[in-house]
Amino acid sequence: MTPRLTVVGAGPGDPELITVKGARVLAEADVVLYDALSNAALLDYARPGVKKVYVGKRKGMRAHLQQEINDLIVLYARVHGHVVRLKGGDPFVFGRGREEMLFAQRHGLQTAYVPGISSAVAVPGSLGIPVTHRGLSEGFRVITATTANGELSEEVIKAAQAPRATAVILMGLSQVEAIADAYVHFGHGARPAAVIQDGTLPTARLLQTTVAELPRRVAESDLTAPAIIVIGEVVNLAAAPADLGAQLAPLAAVA
Amino acid sequence: MTPRLTVVGAGPGDPELITVKGARVLAEADVVLYDALSNAALLDYARPGVKKVYVGKRKGMRAHLQQEINDLIVLYARVHGHVVRLKGGDPFVFGRGREEMLFAQRHGLQTAYVPGISSAVAVPGSLGIPVTHRGLSEGFRVITATTANGELSEEVIKAAQAPRATAVILMGLSQVEAIADAYVHFGHGARPAAVIQDGTLPTARLLQTTVAELPRRVAESDLTAPAIIVIGEVVNLAAAPADLGAQLAPLAAVA
Repeated sequence: MTPRLTVVGAGPGDPELITVKGARVLAEADVVLYDALSNAALLDYARPGVKKVYVGKRKGMRAHLQQEINDLIVLYARVHGHVVRLKGGDPFVFGRGREEMLFAQRHGLQTAYVPGISSAVAVPGSLGIPVTHRGLSEGFRVITATTANGELSEEVIKAAQAPRATAVILMGLSQVEAIADAYVHFGHGARPAAVIQDGTLPTARLLQTTVAELPRRVAESDLTAPAIIVIGEVVNLAAAPADLGAQLAPLAAVA
Repeated sequence: MTPRLTVVGAGPGDPELITVKGARVLAEADVVLYDALSNAALLDYARPGVKKVYVGKRKGMRAHLQQEINDLIVLYARVHGHVVRLKGGDPFVFGRGREEMLFAQRHGLQTAYVPGISSAVAVPGSLGIPVTHRGLSEGFRVITATTANGELSEEVIKAAQAPRATAVILMGLSQVEAIADAYVHFGHGARPAAVIQDGTLPTARLLQTTVAELPRRVAESDLTAPAIIVIGEVVNLAAAPADLGAQLAPLAAVA
């Protein structure tokens, strides 16, 4: 028995958006550790009787729990063999997947990575908002609103000065005031903005506005975290609900 | 028979990195249009006898051919029903997928989007380079080196001034001089840089250097386009070839 860890991306929500490889690796797992962002339906890929452990993080206990998760990975791999760590989206997009792999390697585990569909691209895309589009966007930036030490990320300030790039802000709902302030400060308050909750799921909801209006519109809505914020001209390409019938029905537009 | 188009991401190269949904939709296709970046092994998901049409773009004929592709989609959908447009990576990451959907909608087709694993995240990741990592990167930027009108993208210049974000540059191999110049100009020539060819395939190759050294090292190598350039501290996390045994063997490091 070889103790090993495979970090697997669960994708953005829709359980069909795991990769073929990710589904296969889940079926080979001896233990599955999964988080709050992974669709629980994916656990059905694991063999019957395989141990499935929820290791979602509790708010305010992030650092502590990460060490616990690292220890659990090593422990389970030594006892059971192949640990699959299932993470929402892609494990390397704010997922700390590489941290867990490096820890596991230092403790003698073999490690592998199976990428996942990142919410950053697929969630806007599922509502017709492409992160790049000829003539509208020369690239995109994926950022968190808040850095590890709790401050507004410098990348938000820089995004507010980059009219040719789409900004995708993860974990930003509690920072909409600061985000809007930055864009307004640089004269870009009128830039189209969207907030998407439950992207790629039947319960998906879209709020479409401008970045200056974001704080008021979010406050008036009942949108809750986690949600994805997209800022850029590409937001204007959002599909009409009628055009989304094939992939998502009904789409609840936020009033 | 309903004429319709589903734009499907083929993923970064490894045929197992298509999504479960993408594989299912391919099996439902009446016609498959595929490009040079899609792994041809994926065509085996289509039913026997289904028409498979290569629509890879020829250099210098990009604009002309895009209109031809748009017309083919509409034509095939009207004659055969469900057209699946298989695109390397994700259709909305420099893939013009939304353009094709909008054209198809204007001509009466139903449209849908199935995201793909973007090479921008998965290709560096497959070699142990995470686009984000706590303490090293607060986000990442995905950019092309060259804009639609042939100029160096403004986003490259901006990336050279953003030490806390990973830059992933697609289609940049012919622009390494300009990229290095920008970073050196802003005092960041020593930043770690990698060039990856055939990422996620058994033939994957990795060149690891600094951004200032990129032009010389690329010129001395026999790396060819398409290749992905990654610039940022996260490049230092690239896995040792021995650690990649489980997912990729052998890894050819470029001398």
